[in-house]
Amino acid sequence: MLSVHLENGAVELRRQPLPRVAQGFARIRLLAAGICSTDLELQHGYYGFSGTPGHEFVGELDDGTRVAGEINLACRHCAWCARGLGRHCPHRTVLGIVKHPGAFREFLTLPVVNLHRVPKSIPTEEAVFIEPVAAACEILDQIKIAKGTQVAVLGDGKLGLLIAQVLQAHGARVLLLGRHREKMRLVEWCGAAVEVPGKKLPRHAFPIVVDATGSSAGLRTAITMCEPRGTVVMKSTVHGLVSVDTAPAIVNEITLVGSRCGRFEPALRMLASGKVRVGNLIAEGFPLDRAPEAFRRAATKGVLKVLLHPAS
Amino acid sequence: MLSVHLENGAVELRRQPLPRVAQGFARIRLLAAGICSTDLELQHGYYGFSGTPGHEFVGELDDGTRVAGEINLACRHCAWCARGLGRHCPHRTVLGIVKHPGAFREFLTLPVVNLHRVPKSIPTEEAVFIEPVAAACEILDQIKIAKGTQVAVLGDGKLGLLIAQVLQAHGARVLLLGRHREKMRLVEWCGAAVEVPGKKLPRHAFPIVVDATGSSAGLRTAITMCEPRGTVVMKSTVHGLVSVDTAPAIVNEITLVGSRCGRFEPALRMLASGKVRVGNLIAEGFPLDRAPEAFRRAATKGVLKVLLHPAS
Repeated sequence: MLSVHLENGAVELRRQPLPRVAQGFARIRLLAAGICSTDLELQHGYYGFSGTPGHEFVGELDDGTRVAGEINLACRHCAWCARGLGRHCPHRTVLGIVKHPGAFREFLTLPVVNLHRVPKSIPTEEAVFIEPVAAACEILDQIKIAKGTQVAVLGDGKLGLLIAQVLQAHGARVLLLGRHREKMRLVEWCGAAVEVPGKKLPRHAFPIVVDATGSSAGLRTAITMCEPRGTVVMKSTVHGLVSVDTAPAIVNEITLVGSRCGRFEPALRMLASGKVRVGNLIAEGFPLDRAPEAFRRAATKGVLKVLLHPAS
Repeated sequence: MLSVHLENGAVELRRQPLPRVAQGFARIRLLAAGICSTDLELQHGYYGFSGTPGHEFVGELDDGTRVAGEINLACRHCAWCARGLGRHCPHRTVLGIVKHPGAFREFLTLPVVNLHRVPKSIPTEEAVFIEPVAAACEILDQIKIAKGTQVAVLGDGKLGLLIAQVLQAHGARVLLLGRHREKMRLVEWCGAAVEVPGKKLPRHAFPIVVDATGSSAGLRTAITMCEPRGTVVMKSTVHGLVSVDTAPAIVNEITLVGSRCGRFEPALRMLASGKVRVGNLIAEGFPLDRAPEAFRRAATKGVLKVLLHPAS
């Protein structure tokens, strides 16, 4: 079968035997996968990665059932797993990220317990977004956001656009701040306000600020915009050291919440209900054998979601 | 009257008229005051400060009542004040820090509503610690700490020693990590474990970690020691930018809580009950007219609380 392989910055194609299916695992035929910023980081060697990436996918089982899969492969025996937090299991592997080959190949494997049936109402290409929508929904699992609460979302990348929709659907009054009016226009239908901010940002004005800028300056901006005793959600995994002026966070007693990936159930509900729309976030699709080109396209500034699908 | 004045790094003594007492304010004769790290920072021009510092004090009213005073002078009309959070009132002045002359003078003034009667069971010199003990107690107002929870407190400065005692008294199992065994010995009576750590600190081991190191490295260490989904309390006001590796905080979904000063009521209870002992944290006392010497002493590494009292 065909599989994508990352090594020293290069995106290669390899022929491999079908994966062995261990006890408790399922073999999944790829239908579509999404290239995420993390994949681009893995390409450049973050986490010392080499191998097959890919953790946003939809596939089908041997009987034709369409499935998406949670990406953390937990041990299921430790205290974290007992608390339902296998996403933090210290023994976990992670699909396409840590010690488990990813979804950018014709067939992949995952534990059966990780799989979720994709309802008919969600088209395959949109179901690829279940994982990033789950990451957006994770915020709602971590902090309470009362209906009508003003929330500023910083960053109009893919994750920022999903977070704005998810929080607005939840009942928050979202202000999305980004640099690209044309991208932000894609989510205006949901009722979120969007703005390309000037140099002067509102100070201490929002009870909740989400940093999804992906930049090291984002956290500083978020702290400045957050009101005393407010909450800043950190969604930008920036590698290396970030310079933060912690004094205002302490003086204003701001809470900073690190937030990563989430449960699939709320994401499936959001997508199935149409409260979050992802169709217009798809930039382009490529067959697996054009993965090098797809990675280049995904790395182009301003390009939204690039999909991979098996060669037909 | 005699008053201490900070200007361009110098500690000066000035003669001034008695302060005017505005409507709703009380005039307070100083009995004792404490020099805090913040005062040393003000001396060196942080917040562009010049004037009379001092915010840890005990004094007496004209009728002889001993009082301590909350340091934030709130407007009492805004939304923050309505929520009982005058400590975050955007219009506030702050005793000895922001636009209200401090306690290092023979007579000071504060709004009557800021004052708390000091119970007889707390000696004057120990009552000076009400304000920093309140800052330690603030942690309990911000986060829930169940009895028996393991909490690591980083830093054996004055605040770290108070936090260790307060959290242990609350029912947590505290491990205090610092560099000075002789200082940490002062709080061992309360049951907290103390340790001078080696190079290798425990990783992802504590559900709650309090950074009271006062150093920019402290926050990074705290994040490393905190377990996934755990909480890091930021108690170190470090000026300027602090370099933080935010990725582990995000991947492990750690919550960072900025924490500053607190309500006096719980601090008074802690001191009155003897659950927090501060007598042995007093290094030395100086009369106000030897304030320059007192500031030098307070700035000496390893010296605990230096007190000022009126010239007899």
